[in-house]
Amino acid sequence: MIGQASSESTAPILAQTQTRVVMYGLGSMGSLVARMLDEHGAELVGAVARSPQKIGRDIGDVACLGKQLGVTVAKDIELVLADTRPDLVVMTIASYMEDMFEPAMACLVAGANVITLSEELMFSRRTSPDETELLDKAAREAGVTITGTGHQDGYWVNLVSVLMGTAHRIQRVVGKASWNVDDFGAELARDQQVGSSMAEFEQWLAGASRPPTFGRNALEQLAVVAGLNPRDASGETKPVIADADTECKALNTVIRKGSVLGFTDIDTLSTDEGVVLTIEMTGMVYGPDNADYNDWTIFGEPELNLRNEKVPTSWTTCATLVNRIPDVLSAPPGYVTLEALPQLRYRHPRRVSTDTTSVPSAEAFRGRTNGLR
Amino acid sequence: MIGQASSESTAPILAQTQTRVVMYGLGSMGSLVARMLDEHGAELVGAVARSPQKIGRDIGDVACLGKQLGVTVAKDIELVLADTRPDLVVMTIASYMEDMFEPAMACLVAGANVITLSEELMFSRRTSPDETELLDKAAREAGVTITGTGHQDGYWVNLVSVLMGTAHRIQRVVGKASWNVDDFGAELARDQQVGSSMAEFEQWLAGASRPPTFGRNALEQLAVVAGLNPRDASGETKPVIADADTECKALNTVIRKGSVLGFTDIDTLSTDEGVVLTIEMTGMVYGPDNADYNDWTIFGEPELNLRNEKVPTSWTTCATLVNRIPDVLSAPPGYVTLEALPQLRYRHPRRVSTDTTSVPSAEAFRGRTNGLR
Repeated sequence: MIGQASSESTAPILAQTQTRVVMYGLGSMGSLVARMLDEHGAELVGAVARSPQKIGRDIGDVACLGKQLGVTVAKDIELVLADTRPDLVVMTIASYMEDMFEPAMACLVAGANVITLSEELMFSRRTSPDETELLDKAAREAGVTITGTGHQDGYWVNLVSVLMGTAHRIQRVVGKASWNVDDFGAELARDQQVGSSMAEFEQWLAGASRPPTFGRNALEQLAVVAGLNPRDASGETKPVIADADTECKALNTVIRKGSVLGFTDIDTLSTDEGVVLTIEMTGMVYGPDNADYNDWTIFGEPELNLRNEKVPTSWTTCATLVNRIPDVLSAPPGYVTLEALPQLRYRHPRRVSTDTTSVPSAEAFRGRTNGLR
Repeated sequence: MIGQASSESTAPILAQTQTRVVMYGLGSMGSLVARMLDEHGAELVGAVARSPQKIGRDIGDVACLGKQLGVTVAKDIELVLADTRPDLVVMTIASYMEDMFEPAMACLVAGANVITLSEELMFSRRTSPDETELLDKAAREAGVTITGTGHQDGYWVNLVSVLMGTAHRIQRVVGKASWNVDDFGAELARDQQVGSSMAEFEQWLAGASRPPTFGRNALEQLAVVAGLNPRDASGETKPVIADADTECKALNTVIRKGSVLGFTDIDTLSTDEGVVLTIEMTGMVYGPDNADYNDWTIFGEPELNLRNEKVPTSWTTCATLVNRIPDVLSAPPGYVTLEALPQLRYRHPRRVSTDTTSVPSAEAFRGRTNGLR
């Protein structure tokens, strides 16, 4: 009498189907996903890493599961696929189609479903249409799915689309999110132009050959989930200037007032319906009062807002991927984007790690989805 | 190439199917729904109201549409159903099954789909199982659906469930929402015990025969949408005490420090999985710094939160109902609750009211879903 969704809800997410999973990538994200999958009762049958420090060790040790699983981390995905014939490969190796295409194709051709944190693959139909079509074709031929998910699935797409579903008429949707350069070390701090003067920043921006932002892929996915037709995408980048001297731990220096603390990528998408979607993503050195947040405003009738404070992005990234697994395993074959999946929902894990003291804490994983893999 | 959801997205929500709608109830909520439906191009073919001031007038005048529709507001739903044979009846007449059962049954038996703001009907499977089963049976026999939706659909159920879908392990979910007694006049202020002493409040509470809260229905619906099995529901009520003298416009008086400003209903639901859901709904006289909000915290791994500020509840209530119409018209016959519907989403209206100056503003409709119909 409770409703159809509940009949399957008490069963653990993966154990019942004996899903055999290969981890392709065992950085911070891959390791946290491995721990979550283990607590859901999934069968981790293989793992591939790039780092020589990880290859040859047990996946349980590399992913800090507090136990060994008798599965050795390998170097070559094709050998692992041939050996293990997994149902699903969890790919946490790259953000862009450019780096994802060949490895993903190898998994699909081997008959494995793919779920990935690749930000572009969440919705690559417009940024990489040819590669997307080839992946779609390969997945259909193999009878499997390939899907991109992660933090944006919940916070930039589906929470926003549900909020939009409570509005009568929308003119504009504006999202703002932020991450702390100090969480990611010196290399990323330099990438974010931390410490530059305004003149240096302008010069860099004029000549910079930067990869596309993930904002565009997320906005295009949001539009489609919200029933709108994406039209033109555009982007701009603005520096964040220090209004007081600010300590930068990543560079072990103080950024002087008037210098660059980082920058904001602003992506905008128009739609055939006239609704304009924008996301402003800021990466900067935080002062004492800053923390990661996710903030959306809908301008229209009526005006609406949604805010998530202190978002633990690594955790939401990995938990979302794990909670999406039953959806992608039961979706029709092909490249599957979020509008074709059921509403994202919680899957209650069946056990707590046997030795939680040895499992990395949320704090240890705190950070952004890219850069830390 | 954009994805399957978009193929139907540019068409106006209701015009394409020529949905013929009867408004059953034309209070604040019904009138606002009528305006929204008109802007979506729906065909308003009939209306029923209780008030003698509304009966006999054109629905366009009663609902402040800024134009007449040539449809007269009537008194008797059965006659209107027989005359108009609508596809859909929008019921905004009552909150509880007790008051909804017979009128809803009349609509179903006449072969009309029903969508309603009745808070209990959002998920009445456990609070009124027998009546729910009878409505379900009548709907199936007539090949139509009956569904309860409104503000809670988005803010207490689906936003929360999506947020839960980004968590790995949940122990507890706590929601808090608030409304201003001063928005609803003297009668409701007295119902909320405004101005009572603590002793008077305790005495009232001990003897009060209050209807069930809507928190329970929403929590049970949330549990099922989130894939959890509802177990035990419980409730308690706590006074809110003034910590300073506070002006009460509804009673045209000042509530002295130490007296009752209103109260909080706390509903709690346990689940088979061990996850505990709570909602705290406060109705009180606001001070200068208070405004309606919707605030949820998820305790678990990790801890997550979501907050909506200054929620225009009447608007979100009505827009959600309108945006749900395509979902309920294409759902399989019967009593349909939210876990069986697609994700709530925006439907772009096809026109702006011809005379927006005469249309009530959001401010005029500002308030809570119950009490104001």
